[in-house]
Amino acid sequence: MKLVRYGNPGKEKPGLVDAGGQLRDLSAVIPDIGAEQLGDAALARLRKLQAEKLPLVKGKPRYGCPVAHVGKFIAIGLNYADHAAESGQPIPAEPVVFMKANSCVQGPNDPVMLPKGSVKTDWEVELGVVIGATARYVTQKSALDYVAGYCVINDVSEREYQIQRGGTWDKGKGCDTFGPIGPWLVTRDEVPHVQKLSMWLDLNGKRMQTGNTRTMIFNVAKIVSYVSQFMTLMPGDVITTGTPPGVGLGMKPPLYLKKGDVMTLGIEGLGEQRQEVIAFKV
Amino acid sequence: MKLVRYGNPGKEKPGLVDAGGQLRDLSAVIPDIGAEQLGDAALARLRKLQAEKLPLVKGKPRYGCPVAHVGKFIAIGLNYADHAAESGQPIPAEPVVFMKANSCVQGPNDPVMLPKGSVKTDWEVELGVVIGATARYVTQKSALDYVAGYCVINDVSEREYQIQRGGTWDKGKGCDTFGPIGPWLVTRDEVPHVQKLSMWLDLNGKRMQTGNTRTMIFNVAKIVSYVSQFMTLMPGDVITTGTPPGVGLGMKPPLYLKKGDVMTLGIEGLGEQRQEVIAFKV
Repeated sequence: MKLVRYGNPGKEKPGLVDAGGQLRDLSAVIPDIGAEQLGDAALARLRKLQAEKLPLVKGKPRYGCPVAHVGKFIAIGLNYADHAAESGQPIPAEPVVFMKANSCVQGPNDPVMLPKGSVKTDWEVELGVVIGATARYVTQKSALDYVAGYCVINDVSEREYQIQRGGTWDKGKGCDTFGPIGPWLVTRDEVPHVQKLSMWLDLNGKRMQTGNTRTMIFNVAKIVSYVSQFMTLMPGDVITTGTPPGVGLGMKPPLYLKKGDVMTLGIEGLGEQRQEVIAFKV
Repeated sequence: MKLVRYGNPGKEKPGLVDAGGQLRDLSAVIPDIGAEQLGDAALARLRKLQAEKLPLVKGKPRYGCPVAHVGKFIAIGLNYADHAAESGQPIPAEPVVFMKANSCVQGPNDPVMLPKGSVKTDWEVELGVVIGATARYVTQKSALDYVAGYCVINDVSEREYQIQRGGTWDKGKGCDTFGPIGPWLVTRDEVPHVQKLSMWLDLNGKRMQTGNTRTMIFNVAKIVSYVSQFMTLMPGDVITTGTPPGVGLGMKPPLYLKKGDVMTLGIEGLGEQRQEVIAFKV
Protein backbone atom coordinates (compact mmCIF):
# COMPACT_ATOMS: atom_id res chain seq x y z
CA MET A 1 0.00 0.00 0.00
CA LYS A 2 0.92 3.60 -0.54
CA LEU A 3 -0.30 5.42 2.55
CA VAL A 4 -0.51 9.20 2.64
CA ARG A 5 -1.69 12.06 4.80
CA TYR A 6 -3.26 14.86 2.81
CA GLY A 7 -4.67 18.30 3.54
CA ASN A 8 -3.47 21.47 5.19
CA PRO A 9 -0.64 21.42 7.73
CA GLY A 10 -1.86 20.11 11.08
CA LYS A 11 -5.21 19.06 9.54
CA GLU A 12 -4.04 16.13 7.44
CA LYS A 13 -6.38 13.22 6.81
CA PRO A 14 -5.31 9.64 6.17
CA GLY A 15 -5.54 8.26 2.66
CA LEU A 16 -4.10 5.78 0.26
CA VAL A 17 -3.03 5.91 -3.35
CA ASP A 18 -4.68 3.03 -5.19
CA ALA A 19 -3.27 0.82 -7.92
CA GLY A 20 -4.48 3.30 -10.53
CA GLY A 21 -2.72 6.19 -8.81
CA GLN A 22 -5.91 7.71 -7.45
CA LEU A 23 -6.08 9.20 -3.97
CA ARG A 24 -8.70 7.59 -1.71
CA ASP A 25 -9.78 8.84 1.71
CA LEU A 26 -9.30 6.62 4.78
CA SER A 27 -10.87 8.94 7.36
CA ALA A 28 -13.83 6.65 7.91
CA VAL A 29 -11.51 3.71 8.57
CA ILE A 30 -8.65 5.10 10.71
CA PRO A 31 -8.24 8.42 12.54
CA ASP A 32 -4.72 9.07 11.29
CA ILE A 33 -1.55 7.25 10.25
CA GLY A 34 0.57 7.10 13.39
CA ALA A 35 1.97 4.65 15.91
CA GLU A 36 -1.38 2.84 16.34
CA GLN A 37 -1.76 2.21 12.61
CA LEU A 38 1.75 1.08 11.70
CA GLY A 39 1.88 -2.42 13.18
CA ASP A 40 1.56 -5.51 11.02
CA ALA A 41 -1.95 -6.32 12.24
CA ALA A 42 -3.25 -2.80 11.65
CA LEU A 43 -1.69 -2.70 8.18
CA ALA A 44 -3.16 -6.12 7.38
CA ARG A 45 -6.63 -4.77 8.18
CA LEU A 46 -6.10 -1.87 5.77
CA ARG A 47 -4.81 -4.24 3.12
CA LYS A 48 -8.10 -6.13 3.19
CA LEU A 49 -10.09 -3.04 2.23
CA GLN A 50 -11.39 -2.83 -1.31
CA ALA A 51 -9.66 0.35 -2.37
CA GLU A 52 -12.09 1.03 -5.20
CA LYS A 53 -14.89 1.39 -2.66
CA LEU A 54 -13.13 4.08 -0.66
CA PRO A 55 -14.13 7.70 -1.41
CA LEU A 56 -12.09 9.38 -4.14
CA VAL A 57 -10.45 12.63 -3.11
CA LYS A 58 -11.05 15.41 -5.60
CA GLY A 59 -8.52 17.98 -6.70
CA LYS A 60 -4.81 18.05 -5.91
CA PRO A 61 -4.46 18.35 -2.15
CA ARG A 62 -1.18 19.00 -0.41
CA TYR A 63 0.57 15.95 1.00
CA GLY A 64 1.86 16.04 4.58
CA CYS A 65 4.41 13.73 6.12
CA PRO A 66 2.83 10.27 5.79
CA VAL A 67 3.54 9.53 9.47
CA ALA A 68 1.73 11.52 12.17
CA HIS A 69 3.70 12.54 15.26
CA VAL A 70 7.14 11.25 14.35
CA GLY A 71 8.62 10.36 17.75
CA LYS A 72 12.33 10.09 17.10
CA PHE A 73 13.84 11.24 13.81
CA ILE A 74 17.11 9.32 13.68
CA ALA A 75 19.71 9.71 10.97
CA ILE A 76 22.69 7.74 9.71
CA GLY A 77 25.67 9.69 8.43
CA LEU A 78 28.27 8.85 5.79
CA ASN A 79 26.52 5.62 4.79
CA TYR A 80 27.62 5.63 1.13
CA ALA A 81 31.35 5.19 0.60
CA ASP A 82 31.62 7.76 -2.20
CA HIS A 83 29.66 10.35 -0.18
CA ALA A 84 32.03 9.87 2.76
CA ALA A 85 34.89 10.52 0.35
CA GLU A 86 33.35 13.70 -1.07
CA SER A 87 32.79 14.92 2.52
CA GLY A 88 36.46 14.34 3.31
CA GLN A 89 35.57 11.73 5.92
CA PRO A 90 36.84 8.16 6.34
CA ILE A 91 34.47 5.26 5.77
CA PRO A 92 32.95 4.67 9.21
CA ALA A 93 33.75 1.43 11.01
CA GLU A 94 30.20 1.34 12.39
CA PRO A 95 27.11 3.44 11.65
CA VAL A 96 27.29 7.14 12.49
CA VAL A 97 24.08 7.99 14.34
CA PHE A 98 22.71 11.48 14.90
CA MET A 99 19.27 12.96 15.40
CA LYS A 100 17.12 15.44 13.54
CA ALA A 101 14.69 17.51 15.62
CA ASN A 102 11.20 16.14 15.00
CA SER A 103 9.99 19.74 14.70
CA CYS A 104 11.66 19.87 11.25
CA VAL A 105 9.31 17.27 9.76
CA GLN A 106 7.13 18.54 6.92
CA GLY A 107 5.35 17.47 3.77
CA PRO A 108 7.31 16.33 0.71
CA ASN A 109 6.53 19.40 -1.39
CA ASP A 110 6.47 22.13 1.26
CA PRO A 111 9.05 24.89 0.72
CA VAL A 112 12.45 24.57 2.36
CA MET A 113 13.34 27.75 4.23
CA LEU A 114 16.91 28.95 4.59
CA PRO A 115 17.69 29.55 8.26
CA LYS A 116 18.40 33.14 9.28
CA GLY A 117 21.77 34.15 7.86
CA SER A 118 22.47 30.67 6.46
CA VAL A 119 24.92 30.43 3.58
CA LYS A 120 25.57 26.67 3.55
CA THR A 121 22.21 24.91 3.25
CA ASP A 122 22.54 21.64 1.34
CA TRP A 123 20.45 18.75 0.01
CA GLU A 124 20.56 14.98 0.65
CA VAL A 125 18.19 12.48 -0.96
CA GLU A 126 17.76 9.52 1.40
CA LEU A 127 15.78 6.35 1.92
CA GLY A 128 13.53 6.71 4.99
CA VAL A 129 12.58 3.75 7.17
CA VAL A 130 9.36 3.97 9.19
CA ILE A 131 9.30 1.81 12.33
CA GLY A 132 6.10 -0.19 12.84
CA ALA A 133 6.80 -2.16 16.03
CA THR A 134 8.84 -1.61 19.19
CA ALA A 135 12.40 -2.73 18.42
CA ARG A 136 14.90 -3.31 21.22
CA TYR A 137 18.13 -5.23 20.68
CA VAL A 138 16.73 -6.88 17.56
CA THR A 139 18.91 -9.07 15.40
CA GLN A 140 19.87 -8.14 11.88
CA LYS A 141 17.99 -11.19 10.64
CA SER A 142 14.69 -10.11 12.20
CA ALA A 143 15.17 -6.34 11.86
CA LEU A 144 12.97 -5.79 8.81
CA ASP A 145 10.01 -7.35 10.67
CA TYR A 146 9.94 -4.14 12.73
CA VAL A 147 9.68 -1.89 9.67
CA ALA A 148 6.26 -0.62 8.57
CA GLY A 149 7.55 0.72 5.28
CA TYR A 150 9.73 3.12 3.37
CA CYS A 151 9.64 6.67 2.06
CA VAL A 152 11.68 9.42 0.43
CA ILE A 153 13.40 11.92 2.74
CA ASN A 154 15.40 15.04 1.96
CA ASP A 155 17.87 15.29 4.85
CA VAL A 156 18.36 19.03 4.40
CA SER A 157 21.53 20.14 6.21
CA GLU A 158 23.21 23.42 7.12
CA ARG A 159 26.90 22.63 6.79
CA GLU A 160 28.23 25.56 8.80
CA TYR A 161 25.93 24.72 11.73
CA GLN A 162 26.69 21.01 11.35
CA ILE A 163 30.46 21.18 11.14
CA GLN A 164 31.79 24.59 12.14
CA ARG A 165 29.68 25.58 15.15
CA GLY A 166 31.07 23.18 17.73
CA GLY A 167 29.68 19.99 19.10
CA THR A 168 27.60 17.41 17.35
CA TRP A 169 25.92 17.45 13.95
CA ASP A 170 22.42 17.88 15.40
CA LYS A 171 22.72 21.68 15.26
CA GLY A 172 22.74 21.68 11.46
CA LYS A 173 20.17 18.98 10.84
CA GLY A 174 16.97 19.99 12.61
CA CYS A 175 16.19 23.53 11.44
CA ASP A 176 12.54 24.14 10.59
CA THR A 177 11.59 22.67 7.17
CA PHE A 178 14.74 20.48 7.06
CA GLY A 179 12.75 17.24 7.09
CA PRO A 180 10.54 16.76 3.99
CA ILE A 181 9.11 13.21 4.21
CA GLY A 182 6.91 11.46 1.64
CA PRO A 183 4.85 11.61 -0.49
CA TRP A 184 4.00 8.04 0.42
CA LEU A 185 4.71 5.52 3.10
CA VAL A 186 5.08 2.39 0.95
CA THR A 187 4.50 -0.67 3.12
CA ARG A 188 7.42 -3.08 3.23
CA ASP A 189 5.55 -5.89 1.44
CA GLU A 190 5.65 -3.72 -1.68
CA VAL A 191 9.40 -3.07 -1.40
CA PRO A 192 10.88 -6.57 -1.69
CA HIS A 193 14.29 -5.33 -2.86
CA VAL A 194 15.02 -2.42 -0.54
CA GLN A 195 18.75 -2.68 -1.30
CA LYS A 196 18.25 -2.26 -5.05
CA LEU A 197 16.44 1.09 -5.29
CA SER A 198 17.77 3.82 -7.55
CA MET A 199 17.60 7.36 -6.22
CA TRP A 200 18.25 10.83 -7.61
CA LEU A 201 18.10 14.53 -6.84
CA ASP A 202 17.95 17.42 -9.32
CA LEU A 203 18.67 21.05 -8.50
CA ASN A 204 16.87 23.42 -10.88
CA GLY A 205 16.47 20.53 -13.31
CA LYS A 206 20.12 19.52 -13.29
CA ARG A 207 21.01 16.08 -11.96
CA MET A 208 23.15 16.41 -8.80
CA GLN A 209 22.79 13.07 -7.03
CA THR A 210 22.51 9.65 -8.60
CA GLY A 211 22.67 6.61 -6.39
CA ASN A 212 21.31 3.24 -5.50
CA THR A 213 20.66 1.70 -2.10
CA ARG A 214 22.86 -1.21 -3.19
CA THR A 215 25.94 0.89 -2.38
CA MET A 216 25.01 1.55 1.24
CA ILE A 217 27.86 0.68 3.61
CA PHE A 218 25.39 -0.54 6.25
CA ASN A 219 22.13 -1.90 4.87
CA VAL A 220 18.67 -1.24 6.31
CA ALA A 221 18.56 -4.45 8.37
CA LYS A 222 21.95 -3.66 9.87
CA ILE A 223 20.91 -0.07 10.65
CA VAL A 224 17.66 -1.03 12.39
CA SER A 225 19.41 -3.73 14.39
CA TYR A 226 22.33 -1.46 15.24
CA VAL A 227 20.29 1.54 16.38
CA SER A 228 18.09 -0.74 18.49
CA GLN A 229 21.18 -1.57 20.59
CA PHE A 230 21.43 2.07 21.68
CA MET A 231 17.81 3.18 21.99
CA THR A 232 14.45 1.46 21.75
CA LEU A 233 12.79 2.16 18.42
CA MET A 234 9.08 2.92 18.72
CA PRO A 235 6.25 2.74 16.18
CA GLY A 236 6.25 6.06 14.35
CA ASP A 237 9.98 6.61 14.69
CA VAL A 238 11.72 7.35 11.39
CA ILE A 239 15.31 6.55 10.41
CA THR A 240 16.87 8.30 7.44
CA THR A 241 19.66 6.14 6.13
CA GLY A 242 22.30 8.37 4.53
CA THR A 243 22.84 9.96 1.17
CA PRO A 244 24.74 8.98 -1.99
CA PRO A 245 27.31 11.35 -3.52
CA GLY A 246 26.47 14.65 -5.17
CA VAL A 247 25.72 17.02 -2.29
CA GLY A 248 26.67 20.69 -2.48
CA LEU A 249 29.39 20.30 0.13
CA GLY A 250 31.22 17.92 -2.20
CA MET A 251 31.27 20.23 -5.24
CA LYS A 252 34.46 22.07 -6.18
CA PRO A 253 33.81 24.81 -5.23
CA PRO A 254 30.94 23.92 -2.86
CA LEU A 255 27.47 24.90 -4.07
CA TYR A 256 24.70 25.74 -1.62
CA LEU A 257 21.01 26.47 -1.87
CA LYS A 258 19.70 29.97 -2.49
CA LYS A 259 16.26 31.51 -2.59
CA GLY A 260 14.30 30.40 -5.65
CA ASP A 261 16.16 27.13 -6.18
CA VAL A 262 14.02 24.08 -6.79
CA MET A 263 14.94 20.59 -5.58
CA THR A 264 13.26 17.56 -7.11
CA LEU A 265 14.15 14.13 -5.83
CA GLY A 266 12.89 10.60 -5.79
CA ILE A 267 13.50 6.95 -5.10
CA GLU A 268 12.39 4.08 -7.33
CA GLY A 269 8.90 2.98 -6.29
CA LEU A 270 8.65 5.47 -3.43
CA GLY A 271 7.56 8.60 -5.31
CA GLU A 272 8.99 12.06 -5.80
CA GLN A 273 9.35 15.30 -3.87
CA ARG A 274 9.64 18.90 -5.05
CA GLN A 275 10.70 21.78 -2.81
CA GLU A 276 11.19 25.42 -3.62
CA VAL A 277 13.83 27.15 -1.51
CA ILE A 278 12.56 30.28 0.19
CA ALA A 279 14.26 33.04 2.14
CA PHE A 280 14.13 33.20 5.92
CA LYS A 281 10.99 34.72 7.29
CA VAL A 282 9.81 35.25 10.85
CA MET B 1 3.56 25.31 41.78
CA LYS B 2 5.11 21.91 41.99
CA LEU B 3 3.43 19.86 39.29
CA VAL B 4 3.79 16.10 39.17
CA ARG B 5 2.54 13.06 37.33
CA TYR B 6 1.97 10.08 39.60
CA GLY B 7 0.96 6.46 39.19
CA ASN B 8 2.15 3.47 37.23
CA PRO B 9 4.21 3.90 34.04
CA GLY B 10 1.98 4.94 31.15
CA LYS B 11 -0.98 5.49 33.52
CA GLU B 12 0.23 8.62 35.30
CA LYS B 13 -2.30 11.15 36.60
CA PRO B 14 -1.64 14.88 36.99
CA GLY B 15 -1.15 16.26 40.46
CA LEU B 16 0.45 18.99 42.48
CA VAL B 17 2.42 19.08 45.68
CA ASP B 18 0.87 21.72 47.95
CA ALA B 19 2.60 24.17 50.27
CA GLY B 20 2.49 21.60 53.05
CA GLY B 21 4.16 18.97 50.88
CA GLN B 22 1.00 16.94 50.35
CA LEU B 23 0.17 15.38 47.00
CA ARG B 24 -3.17 16.54 45.50
CA ASP B 25 -4.89 15.07 42.47
CA LEU B 26 -5.54 17.28 39.43
CA SER B 27 -7.35 14.68 37.30
CA ALA B 28 -10.67 16.51 37.57
CA VAL B 29 -9.08 19.74 36.39
CA ILE B 30 -6.68 18.76 33.57
CA PRO B 31 -6.27 15.50 31.63
CA ASP B 32 -2.48 15.44 31.91
CA ILE B 33 0.55 17.72 32.13
CA GLY B 34 1.73 18.14 28.56
CA ALA B 35 2.05 20.72 25.81
CA GLU B 36 -1.53 21.99 26.31
CA GLN B 37 -1.04 22.60 30.02
CA LEU B 38 2.37 24.28 30.01
CA GLY B 39 1.60 27.73 28.60
CA ASP B 40 1.38 30.79 30.86
CA ALA B 41 -2.43 31.04 30.59
CA ALA B 42 -2.96 27.38 31.41
CA LEU B 43 -0.57 27.56 34.36
CA ALA B 44 -2.30 30.74 35.60
CA ARG B 45 -5.61 28.86 35.69
CA LEU B 46 -4.04 26.14 37.81
CA ARG B 47 -2.50 28.72 40.11
CA LYS B 48 -5.96 30.08 40.91
CA LEU B 49 -7.11 26.75 42.28
CA GLN B 50 -7.41 26.41 46.03
CA ALA B 51 -4.99 23.56 46.57
CA GLU B 52 -6.49 22.58 49.91
CA LYS B 53 -9.77 21.75 48.15
CA LEU B 54 -8.18 19.32 45.73
CA PRO B 55 -8.39 15.61 46.63
CA LEU B 56 -5.50 14.31 48.71
CA VAL B 57 -3.69 11.32 47.23
CA LYS B 58 -3.19 8.54 49.73
CA GLY B 59 -0.11 6.40 50.07
CA LYS B 60 3.24 6.87 48.37
CA PRO B 61 2.63 6.55 44.64
CA ARG B 62 5.41 6.37 42.09
CA TYR B 63 6.25 9.62 40.34
CA GLY B 64 6.58 9.66 36.57
CA CYS B 65 8.28 12.29 34.45
CA PRO B 66 6.32 15.48 35.27
CA VAL B 67 5.94 16.24 31.54
CA ALA B 68 3.82 13.97 29.35
CA HIS B 69 5.03 13.20 25.84
CA VAL B 70 8.38 14.99 25.85
CA GLY B 71 8.79 16.04 22.22
CA LYS B 72 12.46 16.88 21.89
CA PHE B 73 14.92 16.04 24.66
CA ILE B 74 17.78 18.43 23.97
CA ALA B 75 21.01 18.50 25.92
CA ILE B 76 23.88 20.92 26.40
CA GLY B 77 27.36 19.48 26.80
CA LEU B 78 30.38 20.74 28.72
CA ASN B 79 28.49 23.69 30.22
CA TYR B 80 30.48 23.91 33.46
CA ALA B 81 34.10 24.94 33.03
CA ASP B 82 35.45 22.49 35.59
CA HIS B 83 33.47 19.60 34.10
CA ALA B 84 34.90 20.39 30.67
CA ALA B 85 38.35 20.23 32.25
CA GLU B 86 37.74 16.85 33.95
CA SER B 87 36.46 15.51 30.61
CA GLY B 88 39.66 16.63 28.91
CA GLN B 89 37.75 19.01 26.65
CA PRO B 90 38.32 22.73 26.00
CA ILE B 91 35.75 25.24 27.23
CA PRO B 92 33.33 25.52 24.30
CA ALA B 93 33.12 28.80 22.41
CA GLU B 94 29.38 28.32 22.00
CA PRO B 95 26.94 25.81 23.48
CA VAL B 96 27.47 22.16 22.54
CA VAL B 97 24.05 20.80 21.56
CA PHE B 98 23.12 17.14 21.31
CA MET B 99 19.93 15.14 21.69
CA LYS B 100 18.74 12.39 23.98
CA ALA B 101 16.19 9.94 22.55
CA ASN B 102 12.82 10.78 24.08
CA SER B 103 12.29 7.04 24.61
CA CYS B 104 14.78 7.22 27.50
CA VAL B 105 12.54 9.47 29.60
CA GLN B 106 11.38 7.94 32.88
CA GLY B 107 10.33 8.80 36.40
CA PRO B 108 12.81 10.26 38.89
CA ASN B 109 13.07 7.16 41.05
CA ASP B 110 12.76 4.41 38.44
CA PRO B 111 15.78 2.08 38.25
CA VAL B 112 18.55 2.88 35.77
CA MET B 113 19.39 -0.17 33.67
CA LEU B 114 22.90 -0.82 32.42
CA PRO B 115 22.79 -1.36 28.63
CA LYS B 116 23.75 -4.82 27.40
CA GLY B 117 27.48 -5.26 27.89
CA SER B 118 27.97 -1.71 29.13
CA VAL B 119 31.04 -1.04 31.27
CA LYS B 120 31.08 2.78 31.23
CA THR B 121 27.69 4.02 32.41
CA ASP B 122 28.00 7.32 34.24
CA TRP B 123 25.90 9.90 36.13
CA GLU B 124 25.29 13.62 35.55
CA VAL B 125 23.05 15.76 37.77
CA GLU B 126 21.59 18.57 35.65
CA LEU B 127 19.08 21.39 35.72
CA GLY B 128 16.21 20.65 33.33
CA VAL B 129 14.27 23.38 31.53
CA VAL B 130 10.72 22.63 30.41
CA ILE B 131 9.53 24.69 27.45
CA GLY B 132 6.03 26.17 27.79
CA ALA B 133 5.60 28.18 24.59
CA THR B 134 6.80 27.88 21.00
CA ALA B 135 10.23 29.54 20.85
CA ARG B 136 11.80 30.42 17.51
CA TYR B 137 14.73 32.81 17.24
CA VAL B 138 13.94 34.30 20.64
CA THR B 139 16.25 36.85 22.23
CA GLN B 140 18.21 36.13 25.37
CA LYS B 141 16.27 38.90 27.09
CA SER B 142 12.88 37.30 26.41
CA ALA B 143 14.00 33.66 26.55
CA LEU B 144 12.76 32.83 30.05
CA ASP B 145 9.23 33.89 29.05
CA TYR B 146 9.13 30.65 27.01
CA VAL B 147 10.02 28.47 29.99
CA ALA B 148 7.23 26.71 31.90
CA GLY B 149 9.51 25.64 34.72
CA TYR B 150 12.46 23.65 35.97
CA CYS B 151 13.23 20.14 37.18
CA VAL B 152 16.02 17.78 38.18
CA ILE B 153 17.45 15.51 35.45
CA ASN B 154 20.03 12.75 35.62
CA ASP B 155 21.67 12.83 32.17
CA VAL B 156 22.81 9.21 32.40
CA SER B 157 25.54 8.57 29.82
CA GLU B 158 27.41 5.56 28.44
CA ARG B 159 30.89 6.92 27.81
CA GLU B 160 32.08 4.18 25.47
CA TYR B 161 29.01 4.60 23.25
CA GLN B 162 29.27 8.37 23.49
CA ILE B 163 32.94 8.80 22.72
CA GLN B 164 34.47 5.62 21.34
CA ARG B 165 31.84 4.25 18.96
CA GLY B 166 32.14 6.78 16.14
CA GLY B 167 29.97 9.71 15.27
CA THR B 168 28.05 11.97 17.58
CA TRP B 169 27.33 11.73 21.27
CA ASP B 170 23.69 10.75 20.76
CA LYS B 171 24.59 7.04 20.74
CA GLY B 172 25.59 7.11 24.40
CA LYS B 173 22.88 9.39 25.74
CA GLY B 174 19.53 7.88 24.81
CA CYS B 175 19.62 4.30 26.07
CA ASP B 176 16.45 3.16 27.84
CA THR B 177 16.20 4.55 31.41
CA PHE B 178 18.91 7.17 30.75
CA GLY B 179 16.51 10.08 31.30
CA PRO B 180 15.13 10.28 34.86
CA ILE B 181 13.17 13.56 35.11
CA GLY B 182 11.46 15.03 38.18
CA PRO B 183 10.07 14.58 40.77
CA TRP B 184 8.48 17.99 40.20
CA LEU B 185 8.08 20.52 37.46
CA VAL B 186 8.52 23.71 39.50
CA THR B 187 6.95 26.60 37.62
CA ARG B 188 9.34 29.42 36.81
CA ASP B 189 7.59 31.96 39.08
CA GLU B 190 8.83 29.88 42.01
CA VAL B 191 12.41 29.81 40.77
CA PRO B 192 13.38 33.50 40.73
CA HIS B 193 17.12 32.81 40.97
CA VAL B 194 17.66 30.00 38.47
CA GLN B 195 21.37 30.82 38.25
CA LYS B 196 21.93 30.41 42.00
CA LEU B 197 20.79 26.84 42.63
CA SER B 198 23.05 24.39 44.41
CA MET B 199 23.07 20.83 43.12
CA TRP B 200 24.59 17.53 44.19
CA LEU B 201 24.80 13.84 43.43
CA ASP B 202 25.73 11.00 45.79
CA LEU B 203 26.76 7.50 44.75
CA ASN B 204 26.02 4.96 47.47
CA GLY B 205 25.82 7.80 49.96
CA LYS B 206 29.15 9.35 49.01
CA ARG B 207 29.13 12.84 47.57
CA MET B 208 30.40 12.78 43.97
CA GLN B 209 29.09 15.98 42.42
CA THR B 210 28.72 19.35 44.08
CA GLY B 211 27.85 22.34 41.99
CA ASN B 212 25.80 25.45 41.54
CA THR B 213 24.08 26.80 38.46
CA ARG B 214 26.00 30.03 38.99
CA THR B 215 29.06 28.42 37.38
CA MET B 216 27.34 27.55 34.11
CA ILE B 217 29.32 28.80 31.10
CA PHE B 218 26.09 29.59 29.21
CA ASN B 219 23.12 30.46 31.41
CA VAL B 220 19.55 29.25 30.90
CA ALA B 221 18.43 32.35 29.00
CA LYS B 222 21.40 32.07 26.65
CA ILE B 223 20.76 28.35 26.10
CA VAL B 224 17.06 28.76 25.28
CA SER B 225 17.80 31.67 22.95
CA TYR B 226 20.71 29.85 21.32
CA VAL B 227 18.93 26.55 20.70
CA SER B 228 15.94 28.42 19.27
CA GLN B 229 18.21 29.68 16.46
CA PHE B 230 18.72 26.09 15.27
CA MET B 231 15.37 24.45 15.90
CA THR B 232 11.97 25.63 17.02
CA LEU B 233 11.33 24.76 20.65
CA MET B 234 7.84 23.43 21.30
CA PRO B 235 5.77 23.23 24.49
CA GLY B 236 6.75 19.99 26.19
CA ASP B 237 10.31 20.01 24.89
CA VAL B 238 12.92 19.61 27.62
CA ILE B 239 16.48 20.95 27.66
CA THR B 240 19.00 19.52 30.08
CA THR B 241 21.68 22.11 30.67
CA GLY B 242 24.93 20.34 31.48
CA THR B 243 26.56 18.92 34.56
CA PRO B 244 29.03 20.23 37.16
CA PRO B 245 32.25 18.32 37.93
CA GLY B 246 32.38 14.96 39.64
CA VAL B 247 31.27 12.45 37.02
CA GLY B 248 32.79 8.98 36.90
CA LEU B 249 34.65 9.72 33.66
CA GLY B 250 36.62 12.40 35.48
CA MET B 251 37.82 10.17 38.36
CA LYS B 252 41.37 8.87 38.43
CA PRO B 253 40.94 6.04 37.64
CA PRO B 254 37.45 6.44 36.09
CA LEU B 255 34.60 4.96 38.13
CA TYR B 256 31.46 3.65 36.48
CA LEU B 257 28.10 2.37 37.63
CA LYS B 258 27.56 -1.26 38.49
CA LYS B 259 24.53 -3.30 39.45
CA GLY B 260 23.28 -2.44 42.93
CA ASP B 261 24.70 1.08 43.03
CA VAL B 262 22.33 3.80 44.23
CA MET B 263 22.37 7.35 42.89
CA THR B 264 20.71 10.12 44.88
CA LEU B 265 20.71 13.62 43.48
CA GLY B 266 18.97 16.91 43.83
CA ILE B 267 18.81 20.61 43.09
CA GLU B 268 17.89 23.31 45.60
CA GLY B 269 14.12 23.85 45.50
CA LEU B 270 13.53 21.29 42.76
CA GLY B 271 13.45 18.08 44.78
CA GLU B 272 15.45 14.89 44.81
CA GLN B 273 15.80 11.69 42.81
CA ARG B 274 16.92 8.20 43.80
CA GLN B 275 17.80 5.47 41.30
CA GLU B 276 19.01 1.97 41.88
CA VAL B 277 21.26 0.62 39.12
CA ILE B 278 20.06 -2.70 37.74
CA ALA B 279 21.62 -5.21 35.36
CA PHE B 280 20.54 -5.46 31.74
CA LYS B 281 17.42 -7.48 31.19
CA VAL B 282 15.47 -8.21 28.06
